[in-house]
This record gives sequence, structure tokens and C-alpha cells, in this order.
Amino acid sequence: VPKHVLIIGAGFGGLTAAKALTDKQDVRVTLVDRRNHHLFQPLLYQVATAGLNPADIAVPIRAQFSAASNVQVHLADVVEIDLNEKRARDASGAPFKWDYLIVACGSQHSYFGHPEWEEFAPGLKTLEQAVEIRRRILFAFEAAENELDPAKRLPLLSFVVVGGGPTGVELAGSIADVARTVLVKDFRKIDPASARVFLLEAGPRLLPAFPEKLAARAAHDLGELGVTVRTGAMVAGIDGTGVEVKGAERIPAHSVFWAAGVQADALTKRIGVPLDRNGRVKVEPDCSIPGHPDAFVIGDAATLPGVPGLAPAAIQMGELTAKNIRASIEGRPRTPYKYRDKGNMATIGKHRAIAETGKLQLSGYLAWLAWLFVHILYLIGFRNRIAVLLEWTWSYLFSKRGARLITGRDWKLPKE
Amino acid sequence: VPKHVLIIGAGFGGLTAAKALTDKQDVRVTLVDRRNHHLFQPLLYQVATAGLNPADIAVPIRAQFSAASNVQVHLADVVEIDLNEKRARDASGAPFKWDYLIVACGSQHSYFGHPEWEEFAPGLKTLEQAVEIRRRILFAFEAAENELDPAKRLPLLSFVVVGGGPTGVELAGSIADVARTVLVKDFRKIDPASARVFLLEAGPRLLPAFPEKLAARAAHDLGELGVTVRTGAMVAGIDGTGVEVKGAERIPAHSVFWAAGVQADALTKRIGVPLDRNGRVKVEPDCSIPGHPDAFVIGDAATLPGVPGLAPAAIQMGELTAKNIRASIEGRPRTPYKYRDKGNMATIGKHRAIAETGKLQLSGYLAWLAWLFVHILYLIGFRNRIAVLLEWTWSYLFSKRGARLITGRDWKLPKE
Repeated sequence: VPKHVLIIGAGFGGLTAAKALTDKQDVRVTLVDRRNHHLFQPLLYQVATAGLNPADIAVPIRAQFSAASNVQVHLADVVEIDLNEKRARDASGAPFKWDYLIVACGSQHSYFGHPEWEEFAPGLKTLEQAVEIRRRILFAFEAAENELDPAKRLPLLSFVVVGGGPTGVELAGSIADVARTVLVKDFRKIDPASARVFLLEAGPRLLPAFPEKLAARAAHDLGELGVTVRTGAMVAGIDGTGVEVKGAERIPAHSVFWAAGVQADALTKRIGVPLDRNGRVKVEPDCSIPGHPDAFVIGDAATLPGVPGLAPAAIQMGELTAKNIRASIEGRPRTPYKYRDKGNMATIGKHRAIAETGKLQLSGYLAWLAWLFVHILYLIGFRNRIAVLLEWTWSYLFSKRGARLITGRDWKLPKE
Repeated sequence: VPKHVLIIGAGFGGLTAAKALTDKQDVRVTLVDRRNHHLFQPLLYQVATAGLNPADIAVPIRAQFSAASNVQVHLADVVEIDLNEKRARDASGAPFKWDYLIVACGSQHSYFGHPEWEEFAPGLKTLEQAVEIRRRILFAFEAAENELDPAKRLPLLSFVVVGGGPTGVELAGSIADVARTVLVKDFRKIDPASARVFLLEAGPRLLPAFPEKLAARAAHDLGELGVTVRTGAMVAGIDGTGVEVKGAERIPAHSVFWAAGVQADALTKRIGVPLDRNGRVKVEPDCSIPGHPDAFVIGDAATLPGVPGLAPAAIQMGELTAKNIRASIEGRPRTPYKYRDKGNMATIGKHRAIAETGKLQLSGYLAWLAWLFVHILYLIGFRNRIAVLLEWTWSYLFSKRGARLITGRDWKLPKE
């Protein structure tokens, strides 16, 4: 009888593990996610700035396993995990049993004890959030065009991104780029190029995971795009009218976006094991839960010394865990996880990036080409690769963005 | 001083009028819409059935007028029209004056005095509604896959489309097609091909605007796709569990979609002139409002004897009204509107259609090619034409649909 592997979450880690177990005769796999799609999160900022469509960076999970007869996919929200009984339950109470468990539930935003900021400063983790950010950006320009009072226009044309990691850098650069190259042609009463974009980082510099030289280059390139970078800027308050910065002037802004902290998905709290302060499970070197060798946590929901919360780490953990499960079934010893550093990259605006891998450091146009190549390569689905290349070619040639839609479920124009 | 033309609504009629007045020195144009995008409504059913992305059938209105220095675009919801003062107001109270007015606000669904049905049977007029219908269709299959009780699976796998006009025919055919060719490969516990699709029409036959022979062919082709067509089926009740049909058995179904009645947008009620029973303004032969020669109503918001509520009529009215306004400015006489019949077409599933123009009647594959050609031709925006052709080629070759996403603002898996 094949052993049953339950995988919770179809992000980079869970999807990779399921694929590595596909068509293996000694296992059957149940892959559960609360979404019907796998999302290529590194390109979410492109959806948020109207450069790509939601469907360009997402694939239906079950379409990935059409031909995999030993994999079952379920749309379900797991809310309970019982390690001793080897049983999980979803929100409807339906049980999922396992011989081996892989928890790959990923991360969500952390507002550092200020959940009330989320309403005014949405994060960028889901397609819905990306579409909401797109809506807010495009609507701000429309509202500014309708506003006759210059004093009221200023906050409408001010955008604040909180958090100077890769997501914050990419989002801020892309907003500045859209305002200056795409929107600038279409308005009559306002000058979209006059939009102010602030990037706030609490630490001493942008992109702490990158070498100092590259981070400085990124800050310089952002400045050329018109982004005002403020380091050492600790956010003390966010409401619908602006951002309070500790020891500095308040920034009046209607649009604030959050790219600062992350924490593990809340599901980790239901496992009943020790977590770090970001809610991540402290796993053994083989990614198993201490005391429960048949239950694993991988990706952003796990913490191991020296392993960063990046897509390549999640993918590697997924591959290794699939191998280790088969090793255990066959009575072979497991291999501990070792992070292979594939490098690090981030775009700044449309044609610039920074990238490092091993001793190689790249910046500017060449780094952007490397970024392009890697992101197309890792994007799942042939259709998506073609669609993304076409959208980017289109945007490159004509400075237009195809996805400039203000939509939302039951969208109504706000009454002023 | 150029005369000021205020156009309310950027659908087929309003957009055409604004384009016809672009760069004319004797007028300046203000184009107002409560959406930032022009929507190609004839392809909405493709978004609803995951065949196209929202951005493929929509273009930002202001991007259409980037180079038109005499056209201003405003995102605003007009709620008040004063014909005597020649002034409109939007929901925020901002005034819009005019020398000439064109009301092109279009139509919305009519539930024949049962607004409570809308919650259970959304219509197909906006991108949000299309995405909501897509969400309901895809979610129904996911929920059926999770459902162990066959009696509870039946309503989850039952889809009812109310209304046998072109929209209802295209939506029903496309749902059957998706279930049988796209989804059929991806599920393990259910057979998506067993999904039941009902098309209910209160009248004696489908597609009353088409010749009887073509309508019969459409009904036959729908049957081959697996759609159960019921004519003379008057809907007496809709709730979350099914549809009550007068004098017939109740149809248990979780998913019901509305393609039955339309009425003019509610804005026509604010004009203060006589309306027909569908809320449309009874206009003069030149599309002007009786007693107000400088105010026009065009497209679905207007009614003229012998003119159908179709996109070609709205486009023709927009062109003519632009010409008549310039004629009045230059002291020339106006031309009355005369409908030029461009014909009528509807698709049935993926590779079949019916079409008639003049004495020519087409059906089957040839009609589908004609449909394809016309829809690509009239779709606004080069990018969209390319994107739509690629999506359709993709779907034709691989029986996959690129937009199979379950999303929605703040989307959460419903707790059962």
C-alpha cells in the first residue's frame, strides 16, 4: 500500500514537493491549499502596478497535476493539525489523515503589533492585494485629476512604500516608473510625473540582504527614478491621510503600501510546537518537527539557522523533503538540508536591477537582463512565460501597460 | 470659443461620439464615466468562463484620448442632470456644464420586479460580475470534488442560465464547453463532463432576434454540447439552492446566472423626461430629447422605433450625433438617425456560431470564423487583439484556459 503524504500549501515549497513525488509508486499525495492557484509571488508587484495580469503569474494548482494519477488536489482551508493522531481538519471539519505531513503554508505580512494599519497600508502577498494596490494607485491619479484644490492634490499624488527590502524597492521603483512613463501622457490637469514616491526603511540602509555596494547602487537608481529614499525612518502611525515617522515630519499621503515585516502563516500556531518570534517552526536539520520525524515544515513557515526566506530555499526544501520521505519509506537514511545560495536579485524600475550570485555582482541593464531571464525561467507554465514576455515587450516598446483597470468586487466610485 | 460637449458614458456610443469629435476645432469634449475603462461587452462571457482576462477586453478610457488635446476624461458618477440649466452634477457635487449633452449611460440588468434574485443569479454587464461568475463556476467544481455525498454533488454540478438571447446562449454553451473539454482532465472524484447546464427561456424559442432556422440550429448545437434547453420556462423563484420554474419541476442548482432582461441605466430617471417601460428615453429621430434639441440620448439608454439594443446601433448613433452637433454649430440641418442593419451573430461553444447579415445566413464553423473576425476587428486596442488571438489559439490547441483563477476582493474560502 502506498504511503499517504499530505502537503498543506501549494507555494514554491509545497508544489515542488508534490511534483517530486508525482508518479512515485510508493506514495500517494494529497495537496491542499485554500487557493485554487499557485502564485509566482516575485512578480506580484508587476500586477500591483498594472504591468501584468493576475492570470499571467498564477496557474491553477490542479492543472499542474492533470496527468499525475497519484496526486489529489483539494481546495480547503486547514485549521487544525494533530501531530499525535496524524490528522488535520479543514474549516468544514473534513479530516485529512497522513503517513507523512509537509506543512508549507508560507508567510503573511506582519504589522509589528499594529493590525489597524493594514486597512490603510495593504501588503503584497495575494492577487487580491495586488489588484487592490493597483486600484488605489490608479484611483489616486483619477481623483487628483478631479481635484481643483492644489493642497488636496498633494496627498493624492503622494505614495509611501514602507519597507526597504526587495518587495519595497521593486514596488516603489515601479510606481515611479508608471507615473513618469505611462500615465504622464493621459492626464490634462495634473502632471503625473510630479507624483512623489517615498520609500521608508527603518534600518540604516536599503536591501540588507545585499552587499552594501549593490544596495547603494539601488538607492542611487531609485533616486534617478524620482523615489525619495528615507533610511532610519521608523513608522509610528498610518491612517487614511498619511504616515507618521518617528522624529521626522509627517508625510501626507492617501496611498500607503506595506512591504516591511513578514511572519509565518497563522496555521503554524495550530501545530502546538515551539515557534520563533516570527511564528516559524524551529525544525530539525532534515526539516522535520522535533519529536515528530514524519511531519515536516518547509519554506517560509520554517526556520533553520542560515537559511533565508527566499523562493530558492523553499524549492530546495521541497525537493529534499520529498527525497527524505522516500528514503524513510525505503529504509535509507535521510539527508540534512543545506542551503545552496543561488544569489539574490531585485529590479529598480523598468530597465535596471541589481543581482549577485557567488562572487559575481551585477547592476544596471545587464542585471535587469539576468533578472528577466531567471524570472521567465522559473515562472510556471508555458502560456504564462509567453504572456509575460509579450506584456513586457509591449510595455517596453510603447510605454503602455495593458492592465490599467480599476476593478474590485462590487466596485463603486467612493462618494467624496 | 469652441462649444463644450459633455458626454456621459464611454461605452460603444459615448466613446464613438468622443472619437468623432476629437481634434475638431469648434468643440471641446468632456467625457465622463464611472469606470476608468471602456469594456467590450460582447466578450464578457469569455471572462466569465475563464477564456479571457479582464484586461483583454477592456481599455483605459483616457489612454484612448492621450493625443486628443480637445478631450478631457473624468472618472465620475453623474447623478443629476438639469436640462434647463444645462448642468450635470456628480456624486461629489462637482458641476459639469454643457452646450451640447450626450447621455450614453447604457443599460443594466432587470430582474422583472425581483431584485432579491440578483444575489443568487448575478448578471453579466461588468468585469466584476464576470469575475464573480467565473469564481462561482470554478468554485462549484472544487466544492463538488470535496463533497462525498452524491445527493449534495448534484446541485453543485448544476448550472442554470436564465434568458435565451445571445448572452444566455453564449454563456450556457461556454460553461458546457469548459466542463467537458477543460476541467474534465483535472478532477479525480467527480466527472466535470457530467455537469448539467440548463438554459431557460420564457418565450417559445431561443434567440428571437434571429431567423427561426438559425435559432433552431443554435438549439441543436447547444444540445450537442450537453446544454438542456427549456423554452416556455418562466422563472418563478431563485434562491441559493435552485430555480423554481412555473408549472414545472424545480431545478436544484447552486449556480444560477441571469441573462434575461435589461433596462436603461438608472441615470435616465434623473433626466425628468418620459421613459418607456424599460427606462429608455423616447428620443426624436435625431436622438435629441423632445423639447431639448441640444441634449441627446444614444445607445441602450434611448429608444427609437425599429432600432435594436445592439452595439452597432450605439456606434451609429454616436457617429451621427457627433455629426449633428457639428452641423448645428455650423448652421447646417441635422440628419435623422436610420439604423443600418449590420446583422447579428452568436457563438455556441468553442467552434460554432450562427450569423446573419442581409440575406446571408451562416451556421457552424464558418459562422464561427466570421464571428471571430468581426470580434477581433471591433475590439479596441492592438494589444487586446493580439492577446485575445493568443488566448484563443492557446485554448484551441491545448483545451486549456489561462484565466482559471478563483479570486475576489478579500476572497475567503466559505466555511461550510
